[in-house]
Amino acid sequence: MHKGEEAGLTAGIDVGGTKTLICIAGASGQIRLKKKVATQREADPDRFFNWLFDELNDLLSEDGSDIERLTGIGIGFPGVISKDAGVLSGAPAFGWPAVDIRPVIAHYYKGPVYLDNDVNLAALGELWQGSARGMKHVALVTVGTGIGSALILNGELYAGADGASGEIGNWIVDADAETDGMENDGEAFGPFEKAASGTGIGEAARKYFRVTDRSSKVLDLAGGQADGIDARHVLQAAAEGDESALSIMERPLSCMAVVIANMVSLLNPEVVVLGGGVVDSGDYYIHQVRERAAKLTPNPIRIVRAELGNEAGAIGAIRAIKGMIRTRMDT
Amino acid sequence: MHKGEEAGLTAGIDVGGTKTLICIAGASGQIRLKKKVATQREADPDRFFNWLFDELNDLLSEDGSDIERLTGIGIGFPGVISKDAGVLSGAPAFGWPAVDIRPVIAHYYKGPVYLDNDVNLAALGELWQGSARGMKHVALVTVGTGIGSALILNGELYAGADGASGEIGNWIVDADAETDGMENDGEAFGPFEKAASGTGIGEAARKYFRVTDRSSKVLDLAGGQADGIDARHVLQAAAEGDESALSIMERPLSCMAVVIANMVSLLNPEVVVLGGGVVDSGDYYIHQVRERAAKLTPNPIRIVRAELGNEAGAIGAIRAIKGMIRTRMDT
Repeated sequence: MHKGEEAGLTAGIDVGGTKTLICIAGASGQIRLKKKVATQREADPDRFFNWLFDELNDLLSEDGSDIERLTGIGIGFPGVISKDAGVLSGAPAFGWPAVDIRPVIAHYYKGPVYLDNDVNLAALGELWQGSARGMKHVALVTVGTGIGSALILNGELYAGADGASGEIGNWIVDADAETDGMENDGEAFGPFEKAASGTGIGEAARKYFRVTDRSSKVLDLAGGQADGIDARHVLQAAAEGDESALSIMERPLSCMAVVIANMVSLLNPEVVVLGGGVVDSGDYYIHQVRERAAKLTPNPIRIVRAELGNEAGAIGAIRAIKGMIRTRMDT
Repeated sequence: MHKGEEAGLTAGIDVGGTKTLICIAGASGQIRLKKKVATQREADPDRFFNWLFDELNDLLSEDGSDIERLTGIGIGFPGVISKDAGVLSGAPAFGWPAVDIRPVIAHYYKGPVYLDNDVNLAALGELWQGSARGMKHVALVTVGTGIGSALILNGELYAGADGASGEIGNWIVDADAETDGMENDGEAFGPFEKAASGTGIGEAARKYFRVTDRSSKVLDLAGGQADGIDARHVLQAAAEGDESALSIMERPLSCMAVVIANMVSLLNPEVVVLGGGVVDSGDYYIHQVRERAAKLTPNPIRIVRAELGNEAGAIGAIRAIKGMIRTRMDT
């Protein structure tokens, strides 16, 4: 590693509820080193960052480097972050109260830090190096354990007034539900997320097979145990034409198609980028969403698969911190 | 009128399906003259603009002025306008094909012209002189004959990739409707608009009273004839507690609350500005929407009434053309 390159080293970290990806990038943004570790969920933010920076230092030491040599760190979190204030609020995966994490981080690293919601950074990643390259108006929707979205509007991340944009997991997908007493009850998962996330698909399937004797590929894949079924089993069986699986997928798919079509009617993006574990399960899911959503909006609609997979957030974090450093140097 | 002021004269025109408002503003944007005329719907765009510029000239002559003295004209249209190309597409109120209206207008006026969707200009008007003054993130929703919306994001009108943003009239408000075969069929009114617009409220009420013998304030207000009922009768009777009216309003209100809550979950605006004939009917409607929508999103939600009424579009047109002229002078 020669000196000029070392000067441009940045870290991009995507903190997930289950796993955390740490990437180290060189001056031009190419990833030199990366590692994925199980997220150590700590009730205390300081203990969490102590763990996280230990992991980062371990990775840097593999390259004969250390944290002091980084020009900046971008970190994505699964929660709402007020960008100006650095306050993390509503991170259900950690159960932290609203907390200003900047001073906590400053204890471990004094250089520039860019903090944002993980899905926002995934959108930036796809815009920089993935399926949204060269676009100006992009809606990213991720469907995994939960459902998230992020918006690139006029070429920039759109955060909203309080950094709380993109919370489509909370969408109400049935207008009549309100009158039936189904209100948003402030639970971790919103109504749309409950119906259409990987978690929701798994739950619907377990419920389905608890009350039927029907033989099904879904049950076979789960080793015959209804309680062992998760979304992957349902998606694989549906792709193979299993009738129970197709029936279970009906509502998650129609909800997703409606939500994407409604986003397209409202925002008229050039492209909808669809990513996350449920989407990565194969072609069945995205084909179904494409076919259904196209019938539900008169606006032009193009749905593409996210290209960067699990690395989108960390790559976006690198892009964001590089942008922040450049802006500071310009001014 | 002294010369300096005359130099800054602009016209703002809001072309509606039924009525057209023409305003003439002085240098600082204050309205000097205005008139509202019945829109002369012409199948031929050239005949339409011939009529429109005759009306404009008549108004200017009242002030001893004429069209040659205008520094620019802003025009709002009820349709999708590609701003760069000036092509008007999808204007159901006129039944025109996709048409490039710039050369048609240039035949009557050679100066700067700003063209946009009427609801977009209403949002600009509210931002400039109405209830969204000083805001950066605003969702405007208008509920009248139809339903429209416009977005101010990061302080600017958000047009989308093709100028087709804000088309919430096409929103699907029931995810299960798709599986029941209710698809967007390309009709003039979209599913949400059918359920919740003034037109939709009127239709639901006429249907209701055709099959019931119930006495109701709604029927009284319409002179006893079910076929004579329109949304105003329903809104007035509902405000007075009439049970039939309250029952008819249930679905339009729950749909509107869901759509506004979903927009707030997605965009996290500072404020939602609600305007249009249905909203102007009194306090009942906006109170109901406020109360219901607040329960349906965890994001902060503030719903205010549009302040400029029917003049918002023309005032926004003046703001837009003044901005365009200023930008040209700067460059």
